[in-house]
Amino acid sequence: MNVVVLSGGGGGARFARGLQDALAPGELTVVGNVGDDVEVLGLHVSPDLDSILYTLAGVIDEERGWGRAGETWNALAAAAAWGGEEWFRLGDLDIGLHLVRTRALREGTRLSEITAGLVEKAGLETRILPATDDRLRTRVVTPAGELSFQEWFVGRAHRDEVDTVVFDGAGQARPAPGVLDALDAADSILVAPSNPYVSIGPILAVRGIREVIEGRRARCVAVSPLIGGRAVTGPLDRMLRRMAGGTTPAHVALSYRGLIDALVIDEADAPCEAPVELVVTKTLMRDRASARRLAEVVLEAACG
Amino acid sequence: MNVVVLSGGGGGARFARGLQDALAPGELTVVGNVGDDVEVLGLHVSPDLDSILYTLAGVIDEERGWGRAGETWNALAAAAAWGGEEWFRLGDLDIGLHLVRTRALREGTRLSEITAGLVEKAGLETRILPATDDRLRTRVVTPAGELSFQEWFVGRAHRDEVDTVVFDGAGQARPAPGVLDALDAADSILVAPSNPYVSIGPILAVRGIREVIEGRRARCVAVSPLIGGRAVTGPLDRMLRRMAGGTTPAHVALSYRGLIDALVIDEADAPCEAPVELVVTKTLMRDRASARRLAEVVLEAACG
Repeated sequence: MNVVVLSGGGGGARFARGLQDALAPGELTVVGNVGDDVEVLGLHVSPDLDSILYTLAGVIDEERGWGRAGETWNALAAAAAWGGEEWFRLGDLDIGLHLVRTRALREGTRLSEITAGLVEKAGLETRILPATDDRLRTRVVTPAGELSFQEWFVGRAHRDEVDTVVFDGAGQARPAPGVLDALDAADSILVAPSNPYVSIGPILAVRGIREVIEGRRARCVAVSPLIGGRAVTGPLDRMLRRMAGGTTPAHVALSYRGLIDALVIDEADAPCEAPVELVVTKTLMRDRASARRLAEVVLEAACG
Repeated sequence: MNVVVLSGGGGGARFARGLQDALAPGELTVVGNVGDDVEVLGLHVSPDLDSILYTLAGVIDEERGWGRAGETWNALAAAAAWGGEEWFRLGDLDIGLHLVRTRALREGTRLSEITAGLVEKAGLETRILPATDDRLRTRVVTPAGELSFQEWFVGRAHRDEVDTVVFDGAGQARPAPGVLDALDAADSILVAPSNPYVSIGPILAVRGIREVIEGRRARCVAVSPLIGGRAVTGPLDRMLRRMAGGTTPAHVALSYRGLIDALVIDEADAPCEAPVELVVTKTLMRDRASARRLAEVVLEAACG
């Protein structure tokens, strides 16, 4: 059984861990968003890939939802005292990874190779693939102007409304090695409960990924990131209202038009109508066990 | 009064703090060695400049003699777990500085400008100048072959005997802005109790620095780094025996031939003969007060 899940960080990473727990070792491939990658203090940071890696490896800070458990913040504090930026919080343990990755990138190693090395060091059998090794950066157009993703999301705490999302470099970005093959060979393609605009959108913007999913033989099932029409965390509900006109399952399904056969929604959003098959369950991932239960429901829906 | 001191890290940095304490604010310029600069985990590390900065700013780990007090080591441990190098110990607080410097260097800022910025952030009135902004790297020729300075000093704990020391890039390296002017305008030029071969040697190897000291009007006084013919720390006594034939004050003085008017030596090395004027005092810097007393003796010898 080959399962591919498209994922951002946060809820997507939790869902990926649920899948990893529910599947046999080696059955899961996670294609991760790199549109919110950012250079901080000269370090290449891949927030979503890292959240996926840390979550699958069991070293994520569960409470904060990002970064590592037991983290310290001394390097960032020292950097700030010497005049460095501190708007983007990087812990010491986290910086250890960024140092290794940044040096490898400067030496010409591709992000996908580096990520594979990290996955191996973490002892994981799940594959984590960046959607692309090329430069692709999410930008949001807001009433205050166009902003880089992290400038908006972290720097301004995503308080600006979003009129549209654009992907710098999407025209040139090629899928990372393995991505198209994995999608093509998948028995199921899943879309994690991530933000369709800024987490899944940048993955689908990579040349060829949308097309191979549209031409799939496997079923493709998405999990709605909304519960009762509201985002568990983050700005998705506000984005959907402004850009799609509402936050019902139908609005979520339309953001994946032509790509999914079914949408898994929370009990709080049922009953409702949508242009795809709906599967109703409890989608809140309070802990590892509930993430696994959700994964099992989704896998059942995907295997039909 | 303008005093310029040539210095490595460690004992040189302690001596520089003694001078800073003994002089009025703004009277001291430290010209620091950059021959042992090294790239670790993609970070540009300037161990001697940093020891000088940390010591003058009062944040050095006094016991260890390098790095910052209250240091933690989480980033390095994490980097090692992800496959990074860990032979060169970098603490989290220390990494904060290296991140700021490395990014500035990559953006094209010169090491001397960056160092001036750090000095300002530390609130110091002493100037710290790298000997050069250009690439100059100390290498040692040993029976085991030629090694980079840090490979020998840290990587192999300086256990190899040294036949000769060479300075990669010395032919092209120009003095950093301000160095020649400071030496020319100095009322006293001092040489800190640092290793003549690998701490002071790389400074003197920069084009023009030796010449301006040879042509000085000011007196130039060096402090011997040996006590009773032995190095307080490090491999200098073994290096002097092998490369100069002994460890008396005369051997130290000869390593500064033509450059110094007087050598300050420890009581344990007197009486003795040397080709320069000798000043005998207690040279061991146990603490800040004894470093200041030594500085006062040296300043008197230099101004006298």
